[in-house]
Amino acid sequence: MDKLEFIARQLSKAQTKRYEHYVVQRIWHRLNRPDLKMITQQFVSRPNREPRRAMTDMFFPQLGIHIEIDEPHHLRQVAADQLREADIINATGHEFIRVSVSNDLTAFNQLIDNAVDRIRVVADSANFEAWNPEAEMSPATYISKGYVDVDEDVAFRTMADAASCFGKRYAGLQHPFIPHPTEPAKFLWFPKLYENAQWLNTLSPDEKVITEICKIAERLNSQVDRNVREFERNGRRLVFARVRSPLGDLMYRFKGEYLLNIEASNYDRGAVLDRVNKRADTYEQR
Amino acid sequence: MDKLEFIARQLSKAQTKRYEHYVVQRIWHRLNRPDLKMITQQFVSRPNREPRRAMTDMFFPQLGIHIEIDEPHHLRQVAADQLREADIINATGHEFIRVSVSNDLTAFNQLIDNAVDRIRVVADSANFEAWNPEAEMSPATYISKGYVDVDEDVAFRTMADAASCFGKRYAGLQHPFIPHPTEPAKFLWFPKLYENAQWLNTLSPDEKVITEICKIAERLNSQVDRNVREFERNGRRLVFARVRSPLGDLMYRFKGEYLLNIEASNYDRGAVLDRVNKRADTYEQR
Repeated sequence: MDKLEFIARQLSKAQTKRYEHYVVQRIWHRLNRPDLKMITQQFVSRPNREPRRAMTDMFFPQLGIHIEIDEPHHLRQVAADQLREADIINATGHEFIRVSVSNDLTAFNQLIDNAVDRIRVVADSANFEAWNPEAEMSPATYISKGYVDVDEDVAFRTMADAASCFGKRYAGLQHPFIPHPTEPAKFLWFPKLYENAQWLNTLSPDEKVITEICKIAERLNSQVDRNVREFERNGRRLVFARVRSPLGDLMYRFKGEYLLNIEASNYDRGAVLDRVNKRADTYEQR
Repeated sequence: MDKLEFIARQLSKAQTKRYEHYVVQRIWHRLNRPDLKMITQQFVSRPNREPRRAMTDMFFPQLGIHIEIDEPHHLRQVAADQLREADIINATGHEFIRVSVSNDLTAFNQLIDNAVDRIRVVADSANFEAWNPEAEMSPATYISKGYVDVDEDVAFRTMADAASCFGKRYAGLQHPFIPHPTEPAKFLWFPKLYENAQWLNTLSPDEKVITEICKIAERLNSQVDRNVREFERNGRRLVFARVRSPLGDLMYRFKGEYLLNIEASNYDRGAVLDRVNKRADTYEQR
């Protein structure tokens, strides 16, 4: 998807919400910065702010800036099945700019332009890489960088693309749990972090804790045992959560390196994994 | 309807046509001129240009400028029943700016900004009144001006509003054909200039000729006779065509003063009326 198609698709959302639509369009066109990526209707997780899970109207990932028009979209306004697979961005440390709707055209334009000015100030002082839709989902980008980092908005189109960052080229990948091709005792894991047919998985809003429970009764205990064995061999998981982007595309978003919390895990609670690293090394393909 | 609601409704059209939508939005926000009215998806009649009846993507009535994105919308692309009641603007002498769709975001932005520059040049050199949604449909505006003129984009919300420009205040008006309240031998006519249950009326693309045929067989000849009697008493009609705006609102658009063409009219062709004046005097309400 090229920049124009991506932006045009983002901008053509929220059409029934006429004033939100107007704000988002105006910000994009007045800001006039094709080097900035922009996402509309982004789900966010905000551990220190209510509502903890919300939808913002416009999000600039390189700047960590969100636009909220009038009322934030509370979780309760969002259909549960929509949120289930959603790509929920951790918004800790992000800036939220509120734009109130005025019914005077000139005054409303001015309010929106104030938000544009603020975004421009941040963009001019921030250190970021120009938006490059090709590069941002390519393994080569992260191999040459030497790492993937939760704070740098890392997501891949396929499990194979994500796995190809770690020392071996994968053309396709069926299984969502494979050994790390370079680092012993580590694994690459591509979970659905929401309830599905087989698993009752959850990710805490601050993304520090994953809970994994197998819903198939006869496998529940053996899955916990397997996690404990992994832990005893110092096993850690690089987690790429299977999510849907705000445009509906499937993506695998890097969530960090997780390690079993042996104290917290048991047959009742299932396996509890703590995030132990927000960054993971990448490797040239051998 | 205030300016913001009007513009937001105009801008939220064409949403399925993503690139048209992008162009229209960008032109509005980059131009940033709340004194300019803007209409999207305007039907136009262009006597000297094919297609003679077309839909343009964006229209600035005060400047007589249309934006056409890539391909003009030919009449054949328009649903016949949509065009039937449509407000079709006579675009003689108007300027048409074409914007091609490029699939490079920066290049596309530049093409659109070139159109914005051209609109700005015309606006800066043109003599026009700032857009005022309240005034533009108010009888008081045209009474104080002293006339209504086809070239000045005159339309009213109701027949009563239109009739109230001519010397008497009407609170409501049921009949679409009444004597002019001030000038003897003139009439105010609010026709549907398209085929309807009772009439087979047409307006020529150059708007110079109206043809009126009564579809009720036993009244066909008497209607022509009535037109001839009007003509013999020097009767003329100020025509306000009943149309739907691009937003779907009913309006009565001034089309000029028409007089029967006695040579061209007969029981076969019906009554043929020629436009004899694009302007009509208005009068203070007595």
